[in-house]
Amino acid sequence: MPQKPTILDHELVAESRLFGIERLQLRFSNGEERVYERLRTPRIPAVLVVAVKENGNVLLIREYACGTHDYQLALPKGAMDGQETMFEAANRELMEEAGHGANQLTELKTLSMSPGYMGHMIHVVMAEDLYEKTLPGDEPEAIEVIEHPLEDIDSLLAAEDFTEARSLAALYMARDIIRNRK
Amino acid sequence: MPQKPTILDHELVAESRLFGIERLQLRFSNGEERVYERLRTPRIPAVLVVAVKENGNVLLIREYACGTHDYQLALPKGAMDGQETMFEAANRELMEEAGHGANQLTELKTLSMSPGYMGHMIHVVMAEDLYEKTLPGDEPEAIEVIEHPLEDIDSLLAAEDFTEARSLAALYMARDIIRNRK
Repeated sequence: MPQKPTILDHELVAESRLFGIERLQLRFSNGEERVYERLRTPRIPAVLVVAVKENGNVLLIREYACGTHDYQLALPKGAMDGQETMFEAANRELMEEAGHGANQLTELKTLSMSPGYMGHMIHVVMAEDLYEKTLPGDEPEAIEVIEHPLEDIDSLLAAEDFTEARSLAALYMARDIIRNRK
Repeated sequence: MPQKPTILDHELVAESRLFGIERLQLRFSNGEERVYERLRTPRIPAVLVVAVKENGNVLLIREYACGTHDYQLALPKGAMDGQETMFEAANRELMEEAGHGANQLTELKTLSMSPGYMGHMIHVVMAEDLYEKTLPGDEPEAIEVIEHPLEDIDSLLAAEDFTEARSLAALYMARDIIRNRK
């Protein structure tokens, strides 16, 4: 593994209610110096839930996405609060966004979104042995829940409103696990 | 498909050399009003290249990631310049970062990273029929290139320095395509 660059200087250059932008002056191990910018990293990772029913369907949600200003089909997800374990957060988000709880929860992988520019990480949790349970969320409007066959990822690749890299990666991971059980 | 919220107000609230933070006041179709923040979206998408050799190996690179302040193993990628097609950009990035060009290029999917907070999109391009060719890049230090069997995604799931959701999703897509040819 190469030797990490040294952080010569580190400054918060812009800030809003949600975001912070940091500027870092770096010296690489070969002596090269560069100025990089990145987003401030949240203290706690988020969770992404791939909930698989016994019939092989996965629970997707369709929700407004402000970054793309459209409705995106993706897996339920959300921020962990400071008191929760990863599995408690996954179960709560599943109840708030997709009307289900799970008796069996397994961590599949912790994923980054754009590690060059942000340290944000998300725990991918597979949820099984599901039961119906709804908790009120803080969403501005009702979230549409869609059951989709986990074996049919190809039709999601063709869907214009399914674009989220982390949701796609999570579906493939869960599909491999279920296939390997057979 | 639900009716998109109306953008009542739209303001750039913070800006740095690289990033811009926008604040949007939204009215959802049910009358609910909310204030959202998001990153400004680049005008041109980026490209991510899954380059597969005839022996079934894929070309990964290990590069410093400022967001996580560590070295990440991932697929070659980069911004398209305004004059390039998606395939020209994919081939250039492959030459700059992984020392190869490709005679066959196929778009697999356009992915988002975190569509709730940013509109950034990346074209996933599969590269085949490879040949050795290197172009100089603008990296601060040499990039390590690693050949890895495309069929062995599981060992990447276990690797702490392989975390990128988009690279993982791209590998699974390419693996499905190659498996379906057999």
